[in-house]
Amino acid sequence: MKKYVYLFSEGNKDMKDLLGGKGANLAEMTNIGLPVPQGFTITTEACNKYYDDHEAIAEEIKEEIVNKVKQLEEITKKGFGDVNNPLLVSVRSGSRASMPGMMDTVLNLGLNDKVAVNFSKKLDNTRFVYDSYRRFIMMFADVVKGYDKSNFEKVLEAYKNERSYQSDLDLTAADMINITKEYKKIYQEIASEEFPQDPYEQLMETIQAVFRSWNNERAKVYRKLNDIPSSWGTAVNVQEMVYGNSGENSGTGVAFTRNPATGEDKLYGEYLINAQGEDVVAGIRTPQDISTLKDLMPSVYKQFHKNALILENHYKDMQDMEFTIENGKLFMLQTRNGKRTAQAAVKIAVDMVNEGLISKQEALMKVEPRQLEQLLHPTFETKALQNAQIIASGLAASPGCATGKIVFEAKMAKKLADANEKSILVRQETSPEDIEGMQSAEGVLTVRGGMTSHAAVVARGMGRCCVCGCESVVVNTSEKTLTTKDGQIFHEGDYISLDGTTGKVYKGEIAVQEVNISGDFETFMSWADETRRLEVHANADTPQDALIAKKFGAEGIGLCRTEHMFFAPNRILNFRKMIVSTSLEDRKKALANILPYQKEDFKELFKIMSPYPVVIRYLDPPFHEFLPKTTKEIEQLAQSLNITTKELVNRIDKLKEFNPMMGHRGCRLAITYPEIAIMQTIALIGAAIDVKKEGYEVKPEIMIPLIGDVNELKYLKDVIVKTADELITNADIKLSYKIGTMIEVPRAALCADEIAKEADFFSFGTNDLTQFTFGFSRDDATKYLNDYYDKKIYESDPFAKLDKKGVGKLIHLAAKQGKSTNNNLTLGICGEHAADASSVELLDKIGLDYISCSPYRIVCARLAAAQSSITANQSK
Amino acid sequence: MKKYVYLFSEGNKDMKDLLGGKGANLAEMTNIGLPVPQGFTITTEACNKYYDDHEAIAEEIKEEIVNKVKQLEEITKKGFGDVNNPLLVSVRSGSRASMPGMMDTVLNLGLNDKVAVNFSKKLDNTRFVYDSYRRFIMMFADVVKGYDKSNFEKVLEAYKNERSYQSDLDLTAADMINITKEYKKIYQEIASEEFPQDPYEQLMETIQAVFRSWNNERAKVYRKLNDIPSSWGTAVNVQEMVYGNSGENSGTGVAFTRNPATGEDKLYGEYLINAQGEDVVAGIRTPQDISTLKDLMPSVYKQFHKNALILENHYKDMQDMEFTIENGKLFMLQTRNGKRTAQAAVKIAVDMVNEGLISKQEALMKVEPRQLEQLLHPTFETKALQNAQIIASGLAASPGCATGKIVFEAKMAKKLADANEKSILVRQETSPEDIEGMQSAEGVLTVRGGMTSHAAVVARGMGRCCVCGCESVVVNTSEKTLTTKDGQIFHEGDYISLDGTTGKVYKGEIAVQEVNISGDFETFMSWADETRRLEVHANADTPQDALIAKKFGAEGIGLCRTEHMFFAPNRILNFRKMIVSTSLEDRKKALANILPYQKEDFKELFKIMSPYPVVIRYLDPPFHEFLPKTTKEIEQLAQSLNITTKELVNRIDKLKEFNPMMGHRGCRLAITYPEIAIMQTIALIGAAIDVKKEGYEVKPEIMIPLIGDVNELKYLKDVIVKTADELITNADIKLSYKIGTMIEVPRAALCADEIAKEADFFSFGTNDLTQFTFGFSRDDATKYLNDYYDKKIYESDPFAKLDKKGVGKLIHLAAKQGKSTNNNLTLGICGEHAADASSVELLDKIGLDYISCSPYRIVCARLAAAQSSITANQSK
Repeated sequence: MKKYVYLFSEGNKDMKDLLGGKGANLAEMTNIGLPVPQGFTITTEACNKYYDDHEAIAEEIKEEIVNKVKQLEEITKKGFGDVNNPLLVSVRSGSRASMPGMMDTVLNLGLNDKVAVNFSKKLDNTRFVYDSYRRFIMMFADVVKGYDKSNFEKVLEAYKNERSYQSDLDLTAADMINITKEYKKIYQEIASEEFPQDPYEQLMETIQAVFRSWNNERAKVYRKLNDIPSSWGTAVNVQEMVYGNSGENSGTGVAFTRNPATGEDKLYGEYLINAQGEDVVAGIRTPQDISTLKDLMPSVYKQFHKNALILENHYKDMQDMEFTIENGKLFMLQTRNGKRTAQAAVKIAVDMVNEGLISKQEALMKVEPRQLEQLLHPTFETKALQNAQIIASGLAASPGCATGKIVFEAKMAKKLADANEKSILVRQETSPEDIEGMQSAEGVLTVRGGMTSHAAVVARGMGRCCVCGCESVVVNTSEKTLTTKDGQIFHEGDYISLDGTTGKVYKGEIAVQEVNISGDFETFMSWADETRRLEVHANADTPQDALIAKKFGAEGIGLCRTEHMFFAPNRILNFRKMIVSTSLEDRKKALANILPYQKEDFKELFKIMSPYPVVIRYLDPPFHEFLPKTTKEIEQLAQSLNITTKELVNRIDKLKEFNPMMGHRGCRLAITYPEIAIMQTIALIGAAIDVKKEGYEVKPEIMIPLIGDVNELKYLKDVIVKTADELITNADIKLSYKIGTMIEVPRAALCADEIAKEADFFSFGTNDLTQFTFGFSRDDATKYLNDYYDKKIYESDPFAKLDKKGVGKLIHLAAKQGKSTNNNLTLGICGEHAADASSVELLDKIGLDYISCSPYRIVCARLAAAQSSITANQSK
Repeated sequence: MKKYVYLFSEGNKDMKDLLGGKGANLAEMTNIGLPVPQGFTITTEACNKYYDDHEAIAEEIKEEIVNKVKQLEEITKKGFGDVNNPLLVSVRSGSRASMPGMMDTVLNLGLNDKVAVNFSKKLDNTRFVYDSYRRFIMMFADVVKGYDKSNFEKVLEAYKNERSYQSDLDLTAADMINITKEYKKIYQEIASEEFPQDPYEQLMETIQAVFRSWNNERAKVYRKLNDIPSSWGTAVNVQEMVYGNSGENSGTGVAFTRNPATGEDKLYGEYLINAQGEDVVAGIRTPQDISTLKDLMPSVYKQFHKNALILENHYKDMQDMEFTIENGKLFMLQTRNGKRTAQAAVKIAVDMVNEGLISKQEALMKVEPRQLEQLLHPTFETKALQNAQIIASGLAASPGCATGKIVFEAKMAKKLADANEKSILVRQETSPEDIEGMQSAEGVLTVRGGMTSHAAVVARGMGRCCVCGCESVVVNTSEKTLTTKDGQIFHEGDYISLDGTTGKVYKGEIAVQEVNISGDFETFMSWADETRRLEVHANADTPQDALIAKKFGAEGIGLCRTEHMFFAPNRILNFRKMIVSTSLEDRKKALANILPYQKEDFKELFKIMSPYPVVIRYLDPPFHEFLPKTTKEIEQLAQSLNITTKELVNRIDKLKEFNPMMGHRGCRLAITYPEIAIMQTIALIGAAIDVKKEGYEVKPEIMIPLIGDVNELKYLKDVIVKTADELITNADIKLSYKIGTMIEVPRAALCADEIAKEADFFSFGTNDLTQFTFGFSRDDATKYLNDYYDKKIYESDPFAKLDKKGVGKLIHLAAKQGKSTNNNLTLGICGEHAADASSVELLDKIGLDYISCSPYRIVCARLAAAQSSITANQSK
């Protein structure tokens, strides 16, 4: 029969999946001899069984729990419900991953009317016992029955006011008895039954409540944000109570073995005398710095300091510990790897290597790749953020934090910037006309559009903070107002703040801090570079992007989206002319005007990235983003084309597509209009020739987007090779170039063996590949994805974390088949998955040669690649 | 070394791939001893090599040709270029599939000035020799040099007019010599060189020209229409000339062993005395019925009749033969399986079985499944069609032919129908408001929209002829005009005609004929039913559809698209209310109004199809098709919702999607709004209970669309099962039902093993699966697909013929994986591929249980399934 309940002494730290993090660590601390109040853990499997059994605890598990209570009675020499020597317990959740404060806790369980009376006598501390009892009643009502704690708190407040008490400390033993009575009355009123007196009934009800709390709203949201599968479930820890509130010789606190904000190697924490754990968190009394305990209780401090060292050495990581002092005796209540800032994470990792505590590889595994991005973008000052009011929330489209005055027009952003004032550009959606405004503003907020919308793409390119698809607010551009869901109205000039890393929008001004990158960071990244097998390239569309990318360590450009080169206002007109041209002649004319820009940009890119390869993707413009929208823009374009506005509107209408994502784009455009591919080849090969003549080493690679059939590639390759080879011959120079394809259409993956025969490289476009494989468009999915998370249909966002079962299978197939017919095939990825550790691990395993991501994600990708190498070596 | 040239005596009828149809059959006729002018065939591989070698004939092949000419000289005892005893040859194309008139032919090759002089003397027939020579010059100029024949014909006409000749027969020998001189002069003028005198030069140039003609425009179009891969190439047949124009005892003709229009078992054909083959085709003189040859040349007729019988018995199929009589001697020039109407095809197949000539299985293989559709739809009378002018061409969206007066509004169609007049409804695109008009009209023509647009879907359901996406015409609804590409303007009341089977639009009225289905058809289909393994179900959305489907032999409904039940005007209002509702309450109210319609329709469907299974797909509405469009419709809906027009427009705007095909549809809707699935379950299970209580056997199957993850299915299954089981329990009845899913998203195919654990059946939605796998939307693809065919990127339309390499691979994977975890899984397909023979063969091989298609395609599908079974057994 399956075992569902473990005594602490039966577990260990490697049993996290079963016992949860807290349970496993309580067991581990027990094993290494630290003073831990004893108890037992009900496993995560019991939680899952609870849900499978339609929210009921199976009889077999109930029996096991009762047995474990009996064993605990023996260990503690106390009796559960024994009126003279009662065993009181805490009941706490504890899942595999730390989810602080997300689930429920009940303390002092085991108290009832009779126990309270006798226990008071025995301890000779009536006030303490009834204080514990009344807290228990309140917590039980809250956690088990779902009643609002404020019902109880109001009564307590009233009681104190009547007596003009200043604080809880003024309450006497008699007061506590009275309040307990009051609490029991409230409980009876709202529950229509007496407060349960049977400790086992109390226990079983509470355990169920903790299981239920796994699916409360805040837990679900937390899991979503932190990529924790709902299938993990939570364990429940039942533990003998110890009392930090049993007098002036008692207390409770939390501490970190090192500073979690800076990484400094010094005990860091705080404690309260005569208090229970929740008091520290609640913030009613101001806790004291842990260093002061040294003077107050020297031997306790010494013991705690020693325990902290033992734990850090044992776990080989910075620990976050909870402790309680009961009448001068120290108890360790919890330990876990402490959460820390990116800065601290890097410093601690580097320090621990220098201290000889961990290896470089272990150090690399201790930092979350995603966290590193924090070091590259401004963040809000922690204190300033504490009182900030969130007014809306959208997609975290481009990371960083920004604060400024609301402007609704690009030109206002420019005006404010000229006056040295900070602004946030708020738009329904952005268009190429807004570029200058986006550059002038500190951040960009749009109501519509997804992670690949114009605003998102451009902002990420600029390194500008951006929140997109913030559909809960209403923006009225003519009246210049932004109205939030709850009816707050903001006007032009009002301050708001954006966090592009979380998607949150705050009211008012919040101080922003630039983080200093210390030398540890460089050291750390150099270890990552030594370790990884995968190359890391950049998605960079402009010379500006390329410069940033190189700074962050890119070893090439894996994706240059040539259409993005035309977002700039001085270039867009010719690009639009090209799009709306209806004759070969007109199109060639417009292309000829575009050519010099392209060539210049390519030259710059080649120079910046020399001697690394530069992969240039041929045009794949989402037409609707480039088409003129306002009457003025349309008139301007019509005029420059020398046609009527009506005629232009007609042409624009003809370009409209039912499903642009699945429309006339990518290689399909160049097949219809080979002159586009010819122009781009002239620009690209021409640039390469010029740059090479200037003495640079240059490795141009041409990438054809949206290939689904080998014949598409063959056709375009013929066109390109003919053009390129003629240029090279005429230039009388030796220049080699590659031609490859994106694999972003499922059919390309399925037919990779054929396509590979014609391709020098594959680059997996995992954004589009994910869209087509799932059959949903990222921009439209925002409408229902939240339902999908709520109903536990998706555990994570397939655009952030590569879908292993579907998309991963296709990539694996394509890689295998591609190599089978072309052993020299280079394999890369240029989707947004290159900075996600689990995705990178999968891609590494599949055998890709490089990953490519946006400039600000390169450091994450370098670390993710290093971690993947380490994991792969470990599993060998 | 590879052999590129075969003497007729070296080949046989099974070498079609290599020698082409004509070459293989000339070889076969040679082998069975029929009188065939001898010659040799240059293989299709030589043609492909010609293209691989950049349009040049390799030296090795040239040598082989010269060698074969030498052998032919020995066989014929004549010399190539021998002035006294010249060997003259014809050079004809001949590909694997018959492509009549698509490629080029040159006759009388080997003639030159010297040969003409001496040969005239030898034959004592100067007129004949120079007639042949001048024809040769003209054909060579046309075929090899690409000069317009009219240059020559004008000269001939002028020459005749000057002399007041009535016909070519009036031309004398001297005239022929003069005309030959004239022709040579023209040739020299346009070619800037003398007409080539070297027979080998003539031959090599001509062979190249025939290879080139494989890629002329009309050949490419023909291949596209007939699904012939361009990779096949054409063979070239070089054959000794025989002359049907060498006197009154000579002639030429074509004949079928049976009547190709009716199938009647009687020699059918025509001939001309003293003529060459091209004269019969050219229609200058009226040929005579083959039966009259019996009296004119009894022994020749007898011999030909005998040869016809030999060939039909040998090939076991109706033959289409060409023959020539030279001075009383009969030569067989060609034989091939004759093209025939669907009616003839069925009759011939059944007759040949009755005659003991072929087996039932062979009979089944002789009819093209697609052809059978002709028997179910009205067609234009062949003669009436001959002079019809094509004014435009669109997508062949719903088969059949129709003729009527143009109307631009639905209500006009109704008005004309009431007055017993026929109309063609012409619209930009149709919407549910047009339904009644579509029912009243004979046919529907739309400018926009693809094969799955509203017009196409509804028209197919009604069995109404429809041409969609006819983008070359401009429709002005306010001025009531239809303007064609070349500027013809049609007004309301003008006649046009539509062929929904080809997509062509004709000017004026064309007589339409209903085809009588003979008893042979039933016999034939009964053989198909005995033979096939695959079940054939119908895609039927309404009781009307179901009735048609049952008539055509459906063994169940494989797809009922419930959203299509709401196209009717009296239902659409509530459906729209449901779509635009913003609260659960409003949505439930609208759903409650929809429920009775659904239930009634389901009851009807169950009754009609009893005892067969009925698969009902839950709502997958393309919202944009249902949303109100005109101001009036919007006002009406706003009023009935008791909200302002502005509010409604707002709501409609929020429903707009960037890519509706990849949007909030299918199961995603029901996951967001489970109340929709609940309503549909109540309607469906309620209907099944009612119908069962009335004594019908009922097999309801619930199909969830657009599943991409097993969790989607799990979630909805829970909702459905709970609702259904409660209804069944309350009704106190035994009723079983199935729940399955469409596989139409690539990810579903990739994760089929997981999904199958939760599904009773898979139904492959190959339309959407093709769209997602290729990453293009069918509606948008019309813009570039023609370029794809022209540039030989696609050989066939993946929506008509299942893409084996991509989509087929996914289906195969899904079927295999699905069965691996659920051995009882039923597999079906409900895309439009079920009537395409090659697709059905693939699906049969993969092991599907049934195929489902629209009612009018059921007979095709039954035959395709039978053919697939036969093919599978043969390859065992």
